[in-house]
Amino acid sequence: MDTNKSVQLDGAIIDLDRNERQGFPEVVYCEGKTDQQCVDIFMTLQEHYDTFMGTRARISIYEALKPHIPDVQYDEMSRILYVNRNPINRNGERTIAVVTAGTSDMPVAEEAALTAELMGNKVLRVYDVGVAGIHRLMERLDSIQEANVVIAVAGMEGALASVLGGLVNKPLIAVPTSVGYGANFEGLAALLAMLNSCAAGVGVVNIDNGFGAGRLAHMINSQR
Amino acid sequence: MDTNKSVQLDGAIIDLDRNERQGFPEVVYCEGKTDQQCVDIFMTLQEHYDTFMGTRARISIYEALKPHIPDVQYDEMSRILYVNRNPINRNGERTIAVVTAGTSDMPVAEEAALTAELMGNKVLRVYDVGVAGIHRLMERLDSIQEANVVIAVAGMEGALASVLGGLVNKPLIAVPTSVGYGANFEGLAALLAMLNSCAAGVGVVNIDNGFGAGRLAHMINSQR
Amino acid sequence: MDTNKSVQLDGAIIDLDRNERQGFPEVVYCEGKTDQQCVDIFMTLQEHYDTFMGTRARISIYEALKPHIPDVQYDEMSRILYVNRNPINRNGERTIAVVTAGTSDMPVAEEAALTAELMGNKVLRVYDVGVAGIHRLMERLDSIQEANVVIAVAGMEGALASVLGGLVNKPLIAVPTSVGYGANFEGLAALLAMLNSCAAGVGVVNIDNGFGAGRLAHMINSQR
Amino acid sequence: MDTNKSVQLDGAIIDLDRNERQGFPEVVYCEGKTDQQCVDIFMTLQEHYDTFMGTRARISIYEALKPHIPDVQYDEMSRILYVNRNPINRNGERTIAVVTAGTSDMPVAEEAALTAELMGNKVLRVYDVGVAGIHRLMERLDSIQEANVVIAVAGMEGALASVLGGLVNKPLIAVPTSVGYGANFEGLAALLAMLNSCAAGVGVVNIDNGFGAGRLAHMINSQR
Amino acid sequence: MDTNKSVQLDGAIIDLDRNERQGFPEVVYCEGKTDQQCVDIFMTLQEHYDTFMGTRARISIYEALKPHIPDVQYDEMSRILYVNRNPINRNGERTIAVVTAGTSDMPVAEEAALTAELMGNKVLRVYDVGVAGIHRLMERLDSIQEANVVIAVAGMEGALASVLGGLVNKPLIAVPTSVGYGANFEGLAALLAMLNSCAAGVGVVNIDNGFGAGRLAHMINSQR
Amino acid sequence: MDTNKSVQLDGAIIDLDRNERQGFPEVVYCEGKTDQQCVDIFMTLQEHYDTFMGTRARISIYEALKPHIPDVQYDEMSRILYVNRNPINRNGERTIAVVTAGTSDMPVAEEAALTAELMGNKVLRVYDVGVAGIHRLMERLDSIQEANVVIAVAGMEGALASVLGGLVNKPLIAVPTSVGYGANFEGLAALLAMLNSCAAGVGVVNIDNGFGAGRLAHMINSQR
Amino acid sequence: MDTNKSVQLDGAIIDLDRNERQGFPEVVYCEGKTDQQCVDIFMTLQEHYDTFMGTRARISIYEALKPHIPDVQYDEMSRILYVNRNPINRNGERTIAVVTAGTSDMPVAEEAALTAELMGNKVLRVYDVGVAGIHRLMERLDSIQEANVVIAVAGMEGALASVLGGLVNKPLIAVPTSVGYGANFEGLAALLAMLNSCAAGVGVVNIDNGFGAGRLAHMINSQR
Amino acid sequence: MDTNKSVQLDGAIIDLDRNERQGFPEVVYCEGKTDQQCVDIFMTLQEHYDTFMGTRARISIYEALKPHIPDVQYDEMSRILYVNRNPINRNGERTIAVVTAGTSDMPVAEEAALTAELMGNKVLRVYDVGVAGIHRLMERLDSIQEANVVIAVAGMEGALASVLGGLVNKPLIAVPTSVGYGANFEGLAALLAMLNSCAAGVGVVNIDNGFGAGRLAHMINSQR
Repeated sequence: MDTNKSVQLDGAIIDLDRNERQGFPEVVYCEGKTDQQCVDIFMTLQEHYDTFMGTRARISIYEALKPHIPDVQYDEMSRILYVNRNPINRNGERTIAVVTAGTSDMPVAEEAALTAELMGNKVLRVYDVGVAGIHRLMERLDSIQEANVVIAVAGMEGALASVLGGLVNKPLIAVPTSVGYGANFEGLAALLAMLNSCAAGVGVVNIDNGFGAGRLAHMINSQR
Repeated sequence: MDTNKSVQLDGAIIDLDRNERQGFPEVVYCEGKTDQQCVDIFMTLQEHYDTFMGTRARISIYEALKPHIPDVQYDEMSRILYVNRNPINRNGERTIAVVTAGTSDMPVAEEAALTAELMGNKVLRVYDVGVAGIHRLMERLDSIQEANVVIAVAGMEGALASVLGGLVNKPLIAVPTSVGYGANFEGLAALLAMLNSCAAGVGVVNIDNGFGAGRLAHMINSQR
Repeated sequence: MDTNKSVQLDGAIIDLDRNERQGFPEVVYCEGKTDQQCVDIFMTLQEHYDTFMGTRARISIYEALKPHIPDVQYDEMSRILYVNRNPINRNGERTIAVVTAGTSDMPVAEEAALTAELMGNKVLRVYDVGVAGIHRLMERLDSIQEANVVIAVAGMEGALASVLGGLVNKPLIAVPTSVGYGANFEGLAALLAMLNSCAAGVGVVNIDNGFGAGRLAHMINSQR
Repeated sequence: MDTNKSVQLDGAIIDLDRNERQGFPEVVYCEGKTDQQCVDIFMTLQEHYDTFMGTRARISIYEALKPHIPDVQYDEMSRILYVNRNPINRNGERTIAVVTAGTSDMPVAEEAALTAELMGNKVLRVYDVGVAGIHRLMERLDSIQEANVVIAVAGMEGALASVLGGLVNKPLIAVPTSVGYGANFEGLAALLAMLNSCAAGVGVVNIDNGFGAGRLAHMINSQR
Repeated sequence: MDTNKSVQLDGAIIDLDRNERQGFPEVVYCEGKTDQQCVDIFMTLQEHYDTFMGTRARISIYEALKPHIPDVQYDEMSRILYVNRNPINRNGERTIAVVTAGTSDMPVAEEAALTAELMGNKVLRVYDVGVAGIHRLMERLDSIQEANVVIAVAGMEGALASVLGGLVNKPLIAVPTSVGYGANFEGLAALLAMLNSCAAGVGVVNIDNGFGAGRLAHMINSQR
Repeated sequence: MDTNKSVQLDGAIIDLDRNERQGFPEVVYCEGKTDQQCVDIFMTLQEHYDTFMGTRARISIYEALKPHIPDVQYDEMSRILYVNRNPINRNGERTIAVVTAGTSDMPVAEEAALTAELMGNKVLRVYDVGVAGIHRLMERLDSIQEANVVIAVAGMEGALASVLGGLVNKPLIAVPTSVGYGANFEGLAALLAMLNSCAAGVGVVNIDNGFGAGRLAHMINSQR
Repeated sequence: MDTNKSVQLDGAIIDLDRNERQGFPEVVYCEGKTDQQCVDIFMTLQEHYDTFMGTRARISIYEALKPHIPDVQYDEMSRILYVNRNPINRNGERTIAVVTAGTSDMPVAEEAALTAELMGNKVLRVYDVGVAGIHRLMERLDSIQEANVVIAVAGMEGALASVLGGLVNKPLIAVPTSVGYGANFEGLAALLAMLNSCAAGVGVVNIDNGFGAGRLAHMINSQR
Repeated sequence: MDTNKSVQLDGAIIDLDRNERQGFPEVVYCEGKTDQQCVDIFMTLQEHYDTFMGTRARISIYEALKPHIPDVQYDEMSRILYVNRNPINRNGERTIAVVTAGTSDMPVAEEAALTAELMGNKVLRVYDVGVAGIHRLMERLDSIQEANVVIAVAGMEGALASVLGGLVNKPLIAVPTSVGYGANFEGLAALLAMLNSCAAGVGVVNIDNGFGAGRLAHMINSQR
């Protein structure tokens, strides 16, 4: 515990050994940080890494960072800010499938997918196959079943996770989204549904937490 | 409004015109009433009707009533107490399908089914076809689709309602049950899921309210 | 299940057989979709159908769509975007009554009413007859009782559903609205009240879900 | 504030000036107190008062107290333990009406009614007139309207309070009860409904708090 | 019930006999109504009454109404819009005390106070005497005790209601406000505290419902 | 989907192809089923499998089953009922670590551990190493880090999951337990904590759902 | 961190250096542990300490332990099991005041008081001085103000904490209790009230957590 | 109680003896007060004190006050408005440590830190040492342990409080923050976690209540 390396900024400490401990540099959660704090943190990260990322980034952070790090990229849908100078495929053909119930779940799904890709995984996107029209899911089932890990992204009643859980014999990560209204209570309905899935063996992450799902999928996919 | 008939008991008033207004005598909700109160109410009902029922009845009510009304019946699973002296089929072959996700949902399903039968409907029971093994549902789908009204009974995450809603082009009544544990919060998870069903057009009743589902199904089934 | 027809867009799949399966083309839930995604979906729908609709539509979607589909219409109160080239009356004089407790419940009521009308039903609107002045309801009761299906729309404490449920011997669909404040918790009070209605046999839909109520009423009204 | 009289027992202090300050001796909330603590408190009260009471009393407290205070009475339905040696009518013909939605609400209603009676009020009981059969309420409306204060006791969706509030031009106290199940959440549904009543000017007390309603009604009824 | 008078507007019905039934013309809840709807309603009311009011009014409603009803008034703090052409004192020296815990509770308190005044009551305002500095309350206690009805307005933990309830032998109406943050949950903390007040006999209204408190106080104050 | 094999019992359907689809026979959730229903289901399972199990089993089910299946076993702590005639190790030295915060979490932990063992995994138990004495965890960290998958079982505030998540570079499954009291709300506190873990990439299962965690861990551990 | 001493039992680890680190041996939380587990733990503790304790102990644990540790004591009201062979007063005349709103709060208060005493503090008990009769509190205020730390124990609406917080210029620890019913939600009302206390600077512990309050008071009292 | 000094403003009363009773002038909670109300209050305070402060202040209040009190200061991060003409150190080297889990917790932490400083304490800031990288905390542990009182500020799952509670033998105040999203429910997750901390003896304040933590820490630190 005495050999950890970290950099002390004003109000933030950047871990520099997390890459070794956890296979990827520390990921910056941008919400609640000022633009300047984010810029400082990314500037530090870029001194040590080729690939790194921040989540829930406002566009203004990207604009503030661009002059300093010209190859920084910003994905508007997922709100991920990242640098990826040396893309590598760590897990070969072992694919992570990201499946959504609806079109409105795409921002969360893309956060999961892009996270998994930046960490070196091949990703299969299967979007808008919610259970209200279950044949749409059935038509894509073969390709989903070939994946190594499956991420189910759904708002409203979140039934997609249970249906997938019964159909796919692979580790399944469920991501409830805040898509919906009224008694959805900003994702609570889907969250509870996924936690109570009759398809045992589903791991659930926080509402709208695409990043967490992507990271867990990467960790599972890295096993052998 | 001036021609209503009712009987005043100690602490209870029995409507005697509800049969005309609503197609069935007043149904007694036994919970929270003493055995004696229930006996008094049923004794009054039997003076005016051939068929009547009470829900959530303790066995002790049945035992107290049996000496007075020898043909009273008690269904242990649904906890319905009833007299049915002159069974009639009001709605012919127009069937109500009662579908459950699991075996543990049976008490609620039977409350719905028996209610619908006492009110004069043919009932099709399809039990234990939850979405964790969706092929079980698919195998029974043809017969469900032939029904006129469908009641989906499910606890845990309640996904059955959404899946059925996408597959069946008939009025669908969803009954969340308190089957489950933990973040199920005694049926809340299934209730929220059903209210947020992505399959639009699902009518939801209270948690464990098999009676309400049976009655609504009967009213829908009586339409022509 | 192998003969389903659908169109694959970027992030969305449009069912083209739902008309046959469910009696109306897929309805677009516009919230959470970009204007462009909505335009793409509606453009696809109009190639196959004369009548179709989207709910919770922003005016900007309408404006983006208008140049492409000149006869698209937008109802500001209900926020429904629709094309209705060949209006038909499917259910004759069988009327759906939409009843509200207050004037503020009108946007939700109109979503229900317009949905039912687009699907081919005659609709009777009875607005602002909440139980605080119960004589207003009583004065309109005769016409409500002539309807085939009744939709009760109410916020605050949602008592309208229970009172109507006791007075009308027809299938009753209750729509809680988010009208109110404080311990209303954005519709939760009305939702719980409707689920616990002492008038058994009420089917409840999600808070502010006028569309779901309209669709369910249509399905019930189509029975014979 | 320096002239207060009180008696110090082991773990309890008995106010002896509350009769003057608040018109009735301190009322003992028996739940959570041991039988012995209750006996000690009642023994102290009887040294100073002719009329006093305790709420939520177990029968074992009554049995422990009976040998010491032979004229102590116990009302099983309301669970009130009381001595009433010198019954007086303080408020003449000014009546408090206690109205319930159902028979199962009687224990709470009786707690309110008996409290009001012990404090010297005339009480009119109107039970089982819930809104599912609104004519039952209408038939009793005239006598309710003659009362000076009205207490509405209801579980389930608690709609009785709103309907009464619109019909009666007198102060109305609403008591939600825990009668019901499922999404009633042990009285929460009725509580929220009553707090959100569209009939403005309803004062709500805690779930099952018949005592509080009776006491507030007494205070209102004592005004002139 | 056949003699009720009302005016039917587009989406709204105005009761014209409520003045007789309830002692004051129907009060307009402006939230959720369009400016035009409000103008129509107020125009109808002014044809029949000298004094009438609306709550939760936006300033734009006032501005739209002013050209039509030049003597309409708008109280910015309470957001009450009103006409009061013929102020009368109905209840003489019988005073209603409105007491607040903090300065931030003033908008709700003023809604209560102005409502009571418009209905013809004398009001005593005692503001910013919360229990954190209980001597401030004690210093004003004498004048509060002289009032006939007391309204306690408090956010945060709402302890003012309990303390006042123990000190004042008059009907007490408690109004929780949404003043506070965090675990206050927009007034829930104060609401629950007031419902559970150890000072029995407190009537609680909805969070921020100054109007309801003022109206109930008026009804109590009108008793004799 | 047409080749599924299943057995239809009274109220239950037993899948017989789940072993192939999901690597283990259908697991029976015993809660809510009668003893007789459970016996019927297990008798059917034993005709087809050497290893199978039920969770949340009452001892009475075991006693009813014992005469029919003499080698059935019952683990009192985890409440698992199982037959394991032909134990196999499917995943070699690839170990699943089950870590608990406290001794009281053992029943849930044992449900996870025994499930994983019955499915063919080697399990390392590390109990009572909660973060209040973090050195206890640090002392066992080396062996935990050697595991392939880690299950963190904790009640109260559930901080163990976050701390482990930062220390271990392996897929982590978090199981909140209902151990605790008061504002723990029967496991809700731990559940929310785990869902919000600052250590990204934790998959959470339902409160007290040791079985789900064991099954998911097995699926992850089976990957290569 | 490498010099920690602990004893490994079956499913439990006993810290033996916590006395040094935290000033008192590890306290055993008995709920959820079997009698045998508790006996094993206490047997280990007694080998190393003269004073130690367990909370939430069933009487059966005491009875199982008594033959092994004859001088073990059990306090029925607080449910504390303890050995105190060498009572010491660590903090001299620096007193901790434990104040309750009602008699029913005594079990929690005694848990706090006995904990503080076992840890070596002088305790002043002031019980049943809730705010409904605020003069009772005022009469005892002088002695409370002389204490060094104050613990306020209250259920229902928990107003005692706010009132004390405004009157006493000492660190104040608030303990909500589950005393109450209905909208008390088993202590939630008091908990929220205490967290939102307008008297800034109150530290709150879990519902019914007398032990935590006693321990924190001891730590504060030990400062100098 | 008769010698209290206070100033009556319009809608606000300023205590002028709180400095003596509580060691610091009344602190102004600016939220919900108009700019003018705040200016009036601060003008009154400055007539009597050299040091005083307001929390949750908008910048517009500062700007309105600046012309009147030129030496008023505004700290943008903590939103504290203050005058500190005569800074004093009341508690010498006795330090209060303010520790945060993340950078986003800084506004709340600074509210605590600045409050403690204005009241005369030395503050040690240790930021961004959350448990996801526990070595960061360990590296700073020595300096934290030297403090006299510790304030743990954390959002998300709030595990920092439990970990610190086990490591530091000093009074610990936990401040949950609203940092996070989804099932964080605006700080509820961290709040519940801290209330249920397995590290006994943690005093919790309201979500985001840095001021309350700072004040309580000051009171504890002032003890000797």
